[in-house]
Amino acid sequence: MVILYYSEPKRGAHWQQQIKAAFPNIEFRLWPDHGDLNEITALVVWQLKPELLAQLPNLEVIFTVSAGVDQIPTEYVPKNVTLVRMINTDLEQQLTEYACMGVLNIYRGLPLFNAQQRNHLWKPWYCKPANQFNVGVMGLGQQGKAVLRGLQQFHFNCKGWARSQHNIEGVDCFAGAKELNTFLSDLDVLICLLPLTAETKGILNQDIFTDLPQGASLINMGRGEHVNEEDLIEALNSDQLSYALLDVACVEPLPEQHTFWSHPKVQLTPHIAGITRPEAGFISLKENIERWQKGLPLLGVVDLKQGY
Amino acid sequence: MVILYYSEPKRGAHWQQQIKAAFPNIEFRLWPDHGDLNEITALVVWQLKPELLAQLPNLEVIFTVSAGVDQIPTEYVPKNVTLVRMINTDLEQQLTEYACMGVLNIYRGLPLFNAQQRNHLWKPWYCKPANQFNVGVMGLGQQGKAVLRGLQQFHFNCKGWARSQHNIEGVDCFAGAKELNTFLSDLDVLICLLPLTAETKGILNQDIFTDLPQGASLINMGRGEHVNEEDLIEALNSDQLSYALLDVACVEPLPEQHTFWSHPKVQLTPHIAGITRPEAGFISLKENIERWQKGLPLLGVVDLKQGY
Repeated sequence: MVILYYSEPKRGAHWQQQIKAAFPNIEFRLWPDHGDLNEITALVVWQLKPELLAQLPNLEVIFTVSAGVDQIPTEYVPKNVTLVRMINTDLEQQLTEYACMGVLNIYRGLPLFNAQQRNHLWKPWYCKPANQFNVGVMGLGQQGKAVLRGLQQFHFNCKGWARSQHNIEGVDCFAGAKELNTFLSDLDVLICLLPLTAETKGILNQDIFTDLPQGASLINMGRGEHVNEEDLIEALNSDQLSYALLDVACVEPLPEQHTFWSHPKVQLTPHIAGITRPEAGFISLKENIERWQKGLPLLGVVDLKQGY
Repeated sequence: MVILYYSEPKRGAHWQQQIKAAFPNIEFRLWPDHGDLNEITALVVWQLKPELLAQLPNLEVIFTVSAGVDQIPTEYVPKNVTLVRMINTDLEQQLTEYACMGVLNIYRGLPLFNAQQRNHLWKPWYCKPANQFNVGVMGLGQQGKAVLRGLQQFHFNCKGWARSQHNIEGVDCFAGAKELNTFLSDLDVLICLLPLTAETKGILNQDIFTDLPQGASLINMGRGEHVNEEDLIEALNSDQLSYALLDVACVEPLPEQHTFWSHPKVQLTPHIAGITRPEAGFISLKENIERWQKGLPLLGVVDLKQGY
């Protein structure tokens, strides 16, 4: 097995060391020192150019270092090549932290208390019991399930929605376009953890905002392109939505003059909800290389047709 | 058993109804309609005046509707009267929510990102792994233990301190004045959940702030009087502490001209971390009345000497 690493060089050098220690027989080359491209059987990448793929006739597997694969031109990945996304529990844990942080802030009224503090107003407001606070997660893959488990610790009333039917203990699950408005109808908070595909691009638009109860909040931990940003601003301005916590935006870094920056109902974080830490990422890669060597199924194989 | 309720009238009427339904043989009187004071054997109170105690010769038990009893003049409570504070899991759950909210905000850098948003700056910052983030809880009673269980779900490195030695699974426990600085020495966040007593009044002062690592944060969910507010402002201004989330203040409502209001490193909430919800409070009271009737030990009995 000869692996070519094609991403951030500093991180690559770190992984090269670890691979050398764990797999003395595997050659791990760092782009641009790719050597003979005919020898490359595996890629480790974040982004990927079709031109590179065309130069690798013996490629068998692509390991991405991210949880999503929307940055990969899947239509150019040959059918005999296995595309694997990064699954690691550390990443799921980070997303769970972020989701719990966002939901707890909304549930306990922190945006309200921040506004009151600016006005030197000491006025108690009491939240309803947690089991009457409805939190809905869109996207019920490994990440969505991890986030739901975290939220359940706080006894929130948890709901889930995905394209296909899921069965998650203690979570009211909904599936497909037909059940979307029932899913949305009583949510206090909507969390987006969907993969970005042609189907989900722009899914968080006026239709969904209107189906939510007035005053609901949005947490977007998916991709910026899930959101129709004009519709979101309109929904916040009209008080249909009361608050949005956004970790992602259609253009990142968010342009200097974007409305989100100073919108009183928008809280931004700079795409930090879940990142692959080199240590944790290596554990996932190591596990998959071992599985590959033993001929076992890999973890996180992407369905090239569905795109996730 | 004749119970006299001496607190907020609206809540009292609510409880009177519930007591009538649950205990048809118990008389539940609402102050000021106290009837013959010689008949009163139990009090339900928040605050309590010594003069009232002096008029109740047959009093056997005092049930407070709060978790703390610092508002009760314990020195006037006769030795043959049992003082019981409110223990309810709903309250513990609320405190857990609040503590997790505060710690997650600090851990994930929300104060930093809020400042960056004000400057239209999109600049990622990545937190260290949760098990390298040290959170210390002062006060290891039922509430402290519940909060620690909540924090452990997120894999934080949890430490605890109390006057006496405790043994809590997965928590590094410290006891007494001698071990206080060791407890503090590596904390990222210090959470105060102490009872307010003569010993703990003003305990969060310059000494403790100096023993914390530079840049640590404080969450005060105890009482305002635990904090020496001048020392806290000084510690924040000198960058010894980087952030304080305060649910309580020495004077509440916080005076209009107080420095906390517009201090960039202070986040205030108006004493809402844990409140007794009537439904949940009644469940606790009901449990204790049943125990009283059966001659079983009550839950939450206060040691009048220690004051908690």
